[in-house]
Amino acid sequence: MTNNIRVCLSPDLFHLYADRQSIVIVNDILRATTTMCFALGSNISKIKPVMTVEEALEYRDDDSFILAAERGGKIVNGFDFGNSPQPFMNADYKGKNMVMTTTNGTRMINIAKKDHKVAIGAFVNLKAITKWAIEQNKDIIICCSGWKGKFCLEDTLFAGALSKNLLESNQFEMDCDSTRAAINLYDTAKDDLYDFLKSSSHRNRLKNLNIDKDVVICVSPDLVDVVPVLKGDFLEAKR
Amino acid sequence: MTNNIRVCLSPDLFHLYADRQSIVIVNDILRATTTMCFALGSNISKIKPVMTVEEALEYRDDDSFILAAERGGKIVNGFDFGNSPQPFMNADYKGKNMVMTTTNGTRMINIAKKDHKVAIGAFVNLKAITKWAIEQNKDIIICCSGWKGKFCLEDTLFAGALSKNLLESNQFEMDCDSTRAAINLYDTAKDDLYDFLKSSSHRNRLKNLNIDKDVVICVSPDLVDVVPVLKGDFLEAKR
Repeated sequence: MTNNIRVCLSPDLFHLYADRQSIVIVNDILRATTTMCFALGSNISKIKPVMTVEEALEYRDDDSFILAAERGGKIVNGFDFGNSPQPFMNADYKGKNMVMTTTNGTRMINIAKKDHKVAIGAFVNLKAITKWAIEQNKDIIICCSGWKGKFCLEDTLFAGALSKNLLESNQFEMDCDSTRAAINLYDTAKDDLYDFLKSSSHRNRLKNLNIDKDVVICVSPDLVDVVPVLKGDFLEAKR
Repeated sequence: MTNNIRVCLSPDLFHLYADRQSIVIVNDILRATTTMCFALGSNISKIKPVMTVEEALEYRDDDSFILAAERGGKIVNGFDFGNSPQPFMNADYKGKNMVMTTTNGTRMINIAKKDHKVAIGAFVNLKAITKWAIEQNKDIIICCSGWKGKFCLEDTLFAGALSKNLLESNQFEMDCDSTRAAINLYDTAKDDLYDFLKSSSHRNRLKNLNIDKDVVICVSPDLVDVVPVLKGDFLEAKR
């Protein structure tokens, strides 16, 4: 039996795909879901993705929690972490939990989780999320977090890469134009994703924030062998 | 001074682009806007795009009106015309008006017209709409009608073709990822649009309706030298 892959290009289109049955794989390549993969890879026990800064601040007095908040690409005032993956690479946060709010990724997760099982994908866990998705034996909706509801290149590229992997397993099929377009985009960009994204609006938006090193990391495949899966309100690592 | 081009990939994303200032160019390649171009090319005086079959039926007793209604790719029962361009090619309907409702295109027009000047584009009037858009000297939003809110390949291909033309005039710039993705898609498909669309969901959806000849027409550039522009509730030809 083959399962279906659909690509939802924006949180604002999710209502057209929601079916209460498919598994949703959320990606926000620059940088929320990339960072979630590294954070669980650094032995953080669980991550609570929240919509608002206020919800993140509720954990201010809990020493077991790392607080991360990003708005407009920057760390929110008063927080130690934003959405850069670098603090969580080659680090060990055993015994810690995390609460995280970002402009786009945590919004997409919270929209999807109401009626769907949710997992997290990024280039850095591409092989792991592919293997996990195949094992589920269910229809998949790959959800791009976009930028404030708008289409973005980097999330669509990831959707294309993952769709391609899943189709190659011969356990999936597609009947959806956005899946076709995402694969087409990935095929033209895959030889140098970093260079392809040079003109992207996200890169331009953040060019004063010196995130080039983050971008290099975010488009690198298979750096972490972890799949963040939502259980209740928390993401936990499946390895 | 350069103006901006943005591509809106779905009517359900239009709220993110609406600015009450830009000119909106609506396309629904298969087949509503293609047919509108041919209809005005066949000397129909004006076309009223309406959301519902009921609104179209209000003109039932007006002999000056041709009634066209399409749902699910088919002519609605009791109507003489659906959304096929063929009855309007090499035809002369001088003295006639038209009212038209379709699944996607007329919906997009009616969403956009509230706060924006609206014109109609299709491959069949690509050169004419390019020239007209440059003359307006305003920011442009190219709006894809999609399929029931979802992304579709053929409308995005047209958005890419028109964006490319406008950028080549050096009077436009882009800062929008969906414009970049549309141009990328068009560049990989342009040598054989008909073949590229063979796997599209719209083609598959309509494959039992024998619309292959319509598709060939709909992806052919510059067959009509007409730009349908909305004045009040009616589209009229600018030549």
